[in-house]
Amino acid sequence: MPFYSNRDLQFQLFENLQVLELTQYEHFKDHSVETFQMVIEAAAKIAETSLYPLLTEMDRDEPQLVNGKIRIHAGMKKIIRQFGEDGWINATFSYDEGGQQLPNTLHMAAGFIFQAANYSASVYPFLTTGAANLIRTFGNKELIETFTPNMYAGKWQGTMALTEPDAGSSLSDLSTMALPTEKEGVYKIKGQKIYISCGDHDACENVIHLMLARIQGAPLGIKGISLFVVPQKRVSNGESNDVLTEGVYHKMGYKGAPIAHLMIGSNDGCEGYLVGEANKGLSYMFQMMNEARVGVGMNAAAIGTAAYYASLAYAKERPQGRKIGDKDPSQPQIPIIQHADVKRMLLFQKSITEGTLSLLLYCSKLGDIAHAGDGNEKEEAALLLDFLTPIAKSYPSEMCCLTTSTAVQVLGGAGYTTDFPVEQYYREARIHPIHEGTTGIHGLDLLGRKAIMQEGKALKLFVREISKTILQAKDMPAIKGHGEKLEKYLQRAQQTVGHLFTKVGKNPEAYLADATLFLEYTGILAIAWQWLKQAITAQQQLDLGNAENAFYQGKIMCLRYFFEYELVKMDALGKRLMAEDMPTLEMQEDWF
Amino acid sequence: MPFYSNRDLQFQLFENLQVLELTQYEHFKDHSVETFQMVIEAAAKIAETSLYPLLTEMDRDEPQLVNGKIRIHAGMKKIIRQFGEDGWINATFSYDEGGQQLPNTLHMAAGFIFQAANYSASVYPFLTTGAANLIRTFGNKELIETFTPNMYAGKWQGTMALTEPDAGSSLSDLSTMALPTEKEGVYKIKGQKIYISCGDHDACENVIHLMLARIQGAPLGIKGISLFVVPQKRVSNGESNDVLTEGVYHKMGYKGAPIAHLMIGSNDGCEGYLVGEANKGLSYMFQMMNEARVGVGMNAAAIGTAAYYASLAYAKERPQGRKIGDKDPSQPQIPIIQHADVKRMLLFQKSITEGTLSLLLYCSKLGDIAHAGDGNEKEEAALLLDFLTPIAKSYPSEMCCLTTSTAVQVLGGAGYTTDFPVEQYYREARIHPIHEGTTGIHGLDLLGRKAIMQEGKALKLFVREISKTILQAKDMPAIKGHGEKLEKYLQRAQQTVGHLFTKVGKNPEAYLADATLFLEYTGILAIAWQWLKQAITAQQQLDLGNAENAFYQGKIMCLRYFFEYELVKMDALGKRLMAEDMPTLEMQEDWF
Repeated sequence: MPFYSNRDLQFQLFENLQVLELTQYEHFKDHSVETFQMVIEAAAKIAETSLYPLLTEMDRDEPQLVNGKIRIHAGMKKIIRQFGEDGWINATFSYDEGGQQLPNTLHMAAGFIFQAANYSASVYPFLTTGAANLIRTFGNKELIETFTPNMYAGKWQGTMALTEPDAGSSLSDLSTMALPTEKEGVYKIKGQKIYISCGDHDACENVIHLMLARIQGAPLGIKGISLFVVPQKRVSNGESNDVLTEGVYHKMGYKGAPIAHLMIGSNDGCEGYLVGEANKGLSYMFQMMNEARVGVGMNAAAIGTAAYYASLAYAKERPQGRKIGDKDPSQPQIPIIQHADVKRMLLFQKSITEGTLSLLLYCSKLGDIAHAGDGNEKEEAALLLDFLTPIAKSYPSEMCCLTTSTAVQVLGGAGYTTDFPVEQYYREARIHPIHEGTTGIHGLDLLGRKAIMQEGKALKLFVREISKTILQAKDMPAIKGHGEKLEKYLQRAQQTVGHLFTKVGKNPEAYLADATLFLEYTGILAIAWQWLKQAITAQQQLDLGNAENAFYQGKIMCLRYFFEYELVKMDALGKRLMAEDMPTLEMQEDWF
Repeated sequence: MPFYSNRDLQFQLFENLQVLELTQYEHFKDHSVETFQMVIEAAAKIAETSLYPLLTEMDRDEPQLVNGKIRIHAGMKKIIRQFGEDGWINATFSYDEGGQQLPNTLHMAAGFIFQAANYSASVYPFLTTGAANLIRTFGNKELIETFTPNMYAGKWQGTMALTEPDAGSSLSDLSTMALPTEKEGVYKIKGQKIYISCGDHDACENVIHLMLARIQGAPLGIKGISLFVVPQKRVSNGESNDVLTEGVYHKMGYKGAPIAHLMIGSNDGCEGYLVGEANKGLSYMFQMMNEARVGVGMNAAAIGTAAYYASLAYAKERPQGRKIGDKDPSQPQIPIIQHADVKRMLLFQKSITEGTLSLLLYCSKLGDIAHAGDGNEKEEAALLLDFLTPIAKSYPSEMCCLTTSTAVQVLGGAGYTTDFPVEQYYREARIHPIHEGTTGIHGLDLLGRKAIMQEGKALKLFVREISKTILQAKDMPAIKGHGEKLEKYLQRAQQTVGHLFTKVGKNPEAYLADATLFLEYTGILAIAWQWLKQAITAQQQLDLGNAENAFYQGKIMCLRYFFEYELVKMDALGKRLMAEDMPTLEMQEDWF
């Protein structure tokens, strides 16, 4: 069963995004179309031969806590090691760190393939990369040398240990304590952490937690949070570092990845090693979290893509019913893909998954430019990425809950059974609006921070980039109308934002009350923009008489679908955002 | 944990719907507020003491096929028998059938409580009622006497056996064969049926299938389908009737109810007994199916309600974060219910679940009037119910997938774990847009049949009833504005329908291409209407100075929420329905 389209990924990277432009930067200069293609081919091979075959099994054979240790699917050990040996974990890092200086965009594209194949399995190396990235960026030489080689090799698992029972969305309230010891940089850690992905399992020799904690006497709130490396086993002697696994969470989906509840230092025997400066932990974490957030959007798009292709395959094969007006029961039934409503359900999935993939790769490229570029270009890329991050995290996450639901619907009763993978995709998609910041949190981030930072400079960049695409489309007769339509929506969006801005200082609660709706509103605009971009690229090929007509026509149809069925939702959201009635502010607890 | 609100159910039935009006009909004349309350109390007691305690267990301990028999949770036997002994299965039937002539509205209200407590458990008696209803309505005396008493008693399970591998949505293509025997009315049945709910289990002594099959030589298509009673065991001697269980489906949710794959007459040993006349099976089935469809809407609303109350309880208790602008970490965190975005998520759930419950009970009352009334009133009630049925089935089904998702979101990470019931509700809600006709099928039913039948008479009735409510609201200063707003939406909806009607004969494919969107569009209108009705009832109490201020204020707030956040969606849907671009018709299979 196909779980993604290599043809589309090629289009996204090389035709639409022009990813080869990145090789013009000094940092990426050794790369070429050949190295990029090798990365994609290698990813596809692992995905097809190692990850996808375990998709169902890993869902059925959940991690279990056995004698204080989480037992995971036996197949994962080999996979994690393979990720290490093949250089995936540190692929984007510099040569002198053993990396390949691979652009993040390519790493994300490979991740997309892994996630579409088996989301649970893809989580392990991804977390190790994130944790190692924190150590190599903010840690001293000793920490780097002690911890990163085995992480890069896939021998040790990395984690991000943030959440506590009383501190989930509100990280400022975390209370895990760090007590100084005689040795500089070494602290005794004590507390508990919950929902720690891959926080313990039996496929690696050690687990390296990048853990937030509060040094004794530090200020309250976010200003008193520090970052520590806390290994499960002491590196010096391989003995327990008093990080005990209290439990494993059983959950609705992505069951193949264990989520642990950890007790740290219950026996006063846990050592943690300070990363960077004291009290700067949250800012370190947030610098990395932005990448992780775009990554979550990618997870969602990937799962949505796998569900789309599963439902597409079914729709082509399943005969049921006849054309409207054709009721002759002696005639054979037609494949359901010929029904308009089924095509609508497929176009919905295709337009959301390919539209979000386009945005996510665009964001990844911004990240690469922010890293490898310089001057104004670098600064603008970073700023625009900052603005787009809550959208890139949340819109795919929310929408792929709906597209996977639509995939189930295409299969009908069959889709609800475990005989097909779509029900699993439906369950797995549901985590993404929650982890790495809930959708509500990202709404507040976008409207409360990103839209107003530097006097709205990021927002203006966003508008400028969309306007460029509109201008280009207006020069092409076949899609001129769509360019003009998006221009109207963009203008109206600017009016809406202007209206909201009048409330910023006057009534901050009212300003932010519908931040989640604003996030969706902006998300639709961003994806409509990405569809106009893709349509420009496709139309250029059609105008040239490219023989691969069907592929490009599909892109044009998705543009039309998205504008007709999704873009119009901005009308409803915009109306609400302009309204003055505030039931969510006036509602009282005892009225529910 | 509360899973529904008795206060709201009382409001819905006695204040808003004025259900006591039904006791004016001869058929219901023995009933009174006391008998109705007894029914509700009895339902609540079973739900709380028998059904809810098994909710989680039945999800974890799935039905299994053991030696050709489906083994279900051991607790179900007692529950099914209790439903029988307490008279729930035939409660709505006439006195001379051992029933209580209970209005369907009360039976549905009781069902709502059962379904909110444990949807899987509620399915068993519900199916037996449906099957028995077909026998007693269309079967001869012998069939009635042979089969219904043990079904009423909860000793025998009833089922609806329609679906086949090649005939799901397209029932006209079913191919199970019935060969006449020497005995009149007795046929040899041969074929297979899939997705048969409660098609086999070990909690009853026999399973009585109401099965669609084609008598040898019958016309092709829907005109050649007959209805049979096909018991699992012969009644005469208790021996096998050659209905073999080939498999049990494993599915995403409502795992407590077994769904069977049945082989019928594989050994040429299956007898079926014709119900009513030959070749009229589908019309018999459809007369019953309408009730079942409103029932599915109720299932969805009930599961949505249980999820709403679970998330409400959590939101009141869970401290996290602080008010906007208040960042002082030395102050305690506030319960999340105080955040505007959480209130929005709760108001969404409340407005959808109470709004759909209102519509569903309204439809049930129409059914009672269509049954017990006469003349014009009876005819109009039947016609309006016919029109509303696809909406009452589909809008709650689709929307409660979203409200249960929102319930998960309110709990955040906790909601994704199996430590809380919301993830189960999310999985269980997902079946309803599929069974008893997919949403797509109901869209075609509404736009292709119901909207145009009798020259649009049913549609006109719908508009008339909404207009009455608007007129009433416009007389009440507090909600006059909402009455006027709905009036504008109603007028625009009539224009939209008028526009669609221009396509009926000219281009039937274009007319029906967006039938699913039309269904949603009409659904929003119907629920906005129900909210205006509820608000009128609530405002009357507030105007009278009713001391129970909080409850009624909650209703007014929901009206405001629904109009601000949901009604506006008609703007987007309406724009699409008026548009001429038809990507779902033009899209080609090989362009995907």
